[in-house]
Amino acid sequence: MHNFVFHNPTKILFGKQTLPSIGPETKAFGSRAMLIYGRQSLKQNGTYQQIVQSLAAAGVEVTEFGNIQANPLLSRVREGIQVAKKEKVEVVIGAGGGSVIDTAKAIAAGAVVEHDVWKFFTGKKGVKGTLPVNTVLTLPASGSEMNSGMVLTHDEKKQKFGFGHRFLFPKTSILDPELSYTVPPDYTAYGAVDAISHILEFYLTTADPDTPVQDRFMEGLIASIMNACNRCLTHPRDYGGRASLMWSATLALNGLTAAGLGRVGFPMHLLEHSLSGLYNSAHGAGLAALLPGWLHYYKETAPERLAMLGKGIFPETISANAPPAERAEQCITQLLQWLREINVPTSLAEMGVTAADIPTIAEHSSGLAKIWRLREYSQPLLENILTRCC
Amino acid sequence: MHNFVFHNPTKILFGKQTLPSIGPETKAFGSRAMLIYGRQSLKQNGTYQQIVQSLAAAGVEVTEFGNIQANPLLSRVREGIQVAKKEKVEVVIGAGGGSVIDTAKAIAAGAVVEHDVWKFFTGKKGVKGTLPVNTVLTLPASGSEMNSGMVLTHDEKKQKFGFGHRFLFPKTSILDPELSYTVPPDYTAYGAVDAISHILEFYLTTADPDTPVQDRFMEGLIASIMNACNRCLTHPRDYGGRASLMWSATLALNGLTAAGLGRVGFPMHLLEHSLSGLYNSAHGAGLAALLPGWLHYYKETAPERLAMLGKGIFPETISANAPPAERAEQCITQLLQWLREINVPTSLAEMGVTAADIPTIAEHSSGLAKIWRLREYSQPLLENILTRCC
Repeated sequence: MHNFVFHNPTKILFGKQTLPSIGPETKAFGSRAMLIYGRQSLKQNGTYQQIVQSLAAAGVEVTEFGNIQANPLLSRVREGIQVAKKEKVEVVIGAGGGSVIDTAKAIAAGAVVEHDVWKFFTGKKGVKGTLPVNTVLTLPASGSEMNSGMVLTHDEKKQKFGFGHRFLFPKTSILDPELSYTVPPDYTAYGAVDAISHILEFYLTTADPDTPVQDRFMEGLIASIMNACNRCLTHPRDYGGRASLMWSATLALNGLTAAGLGRVGFPMHLLEHSLSGLYNSAHGAGLAALLPGWLHYYKETAPERLAMLGKGIFPETISANAPPAERAEQCITQLLQWLREINVPTSLAEMGVTAADIPTIAEHSSGLAKIWRLREYSQPLLENILTRCC
Repeated sequence: MHNFVFHNPTKILFGKQTLPSIGPETKAFGSRAMLIYGRQSLKQNGTYQQIVQSLAAAGVEVTEFGNIQANPLLSRVREGIQVAKKEKVEVVIGAGGGSVIDTAKAIAAGAVVEHDVWKFFTGKKGVKGTLPVNTVLTLPASGSEMNSGMVLTHDEKKQKFGFGHRFLFPKTSILDPELSYTVPPDYTAYGAVDAISHILEFYLTTADPDTPVQDRFMEGLIASIMNACNRCLTHPRDYGGRASLMWSATLALNGLTAAGLGRVGFPMHLLEHSLSGLYNSAHGAGLAALLPGWLHYYKETAPERLAMLGKGIFPETISANAPPAERAEQCITQLLQWLREINVPTSLAEMGVTAADIPTIAEHSSGLAKIWRLREYSQPLLENILTRCC
């Protein structure tokens, strides 16, 4: 087991009727809040109204900053930082999914410095503090509600960069599964695929006989997310399914699965960030489209891990006595079958990406790979993997 | 899934050569530290010397307070509180196992109030703050290094009471598996049994189709602890085994397994606290002696859970197609076999407790049950279970 630091100070309030706590939980950090949210859903399903009411009751003044899109843009964050400074905002609330929460984090980090916020993402400046951030999660997927990461897209350069710092853990995150009842089927599935990808990228790129507990955690999370996703697609208002999906997706990227594994990275996200940076596609859809190609690549580089994964998440259907390569193949077959059942893209072709686009995506990704310290993923290797994804 | 709050702010520094961080990690909270430790092992294996050196280098003045025994006593904590007040201690360090860490927590809580510290344990006073506590873990077992609980024994009344409060999370805990190389075989095994008991008590008293991820976590932890314990008994200086045992035992009671399960309690610990309170026996040994009786009790009350546990932790040996009662029986057989392999007591008789002692233990435990809000465990029921343990 590798050395590690684990320190996740985010407070999670999980369950029904937890939303009214947003007022007091915010007031604890300041009386002037900035409320970040997305396009329509928050107002349509009544969540917005409850948040505003709770904040008012707690005596918190609110500056609103809505209309955050998926694959959030640097330009919008820059606007938000100006607003936050002008309004002397003391605490930032992100109410939505990963895009909204990441925007809230970026504004919170940018509001306390004079330089441009993008310098954090390019490594030219370090974070020395941020405004406190609270979140209200409506879409389980990114894990940003309980981690220190954020992802932003540069409008002109189409660079989708991630950045993490210990000051970026939210203070309090409210996880009320009922708030995700209105997430449509496609985004429910995309969220599940995103969360599973966060786990698979660690699982399939590490192997250590001293970390069985991390392996069992990851297998348990993947199986739980798949099962919960199925339940939510069948019955969108299945509280238990929504709850299981929300908590599992949060745990999938809160630092726990990676603790002790050493250097881990996000090679699948590398390609996906290029894809959604270039084409502004849905992140989870892109991951789903890339997953089969990656799995076939990992069948060559990590067959034993895929075989172990199969035993862990499909114990009923994968023959325990088959040789590893066969079990790895069975695991891939089962995973692909599930992706088709939840109706997500399973190839780049389904995303409208053709073989002719591969060099551009691979070039973009190999640039990212250097910044993400994933230099083993060279442009030729990425082209090879992308070809498998077509 | 039940509503829950999860908030664990303890920073874990895990791995080789992390011990020298104790100086700066302590200096961050104050310049006058109180160092709590046990009887001999800390000095014998050199850990004490390294701690003192690191604290000195960081400019931290140290008041020593050693000689803490297993099943730590209220009287010793009261003495410690007087010392802490007299020396104007600003931060408390517990370097040892659960008994030492719990003593550190109790001194940290008692040092900031005028009333007797026992009032926290009897519920007569609430915690409003404590001195900060850092820990250096040498014996994986209790989980106290990453949770908000502490256990203390009243010298005269022989009451062994537990108490938890969010202010009692350690600030920083240093988990260097090499520091546990010198834990002797019996205490290595007792620690493993203690950690497994923390999981089993939740696992066998809950059942919720919406918490599969918690179930898989718990199964993964138990399997990992058993495997790691075996490795450590075979090769006491097996770093990977010591690391796996240490991290798994910490995760076994850091709030994660219980999150979402609703009201959980410690019925097995209830009997064991009476046992070690009355006879001053080793906690893990008492739990091991009680475990077979409890498992047979749970075979009647929760056969499906025992069957699921068996499938989760003994997938190679338990027949997937057998009826639940049969799988439950197989699971118990396997667990008992493991207890015998690691050479711990498996009955009260082996602890020198006879049938004649049962009424006294049951009466004592049923008194505790009221305080612990486990009223369903009446004196007759506890006598029934204790009889199975003989």
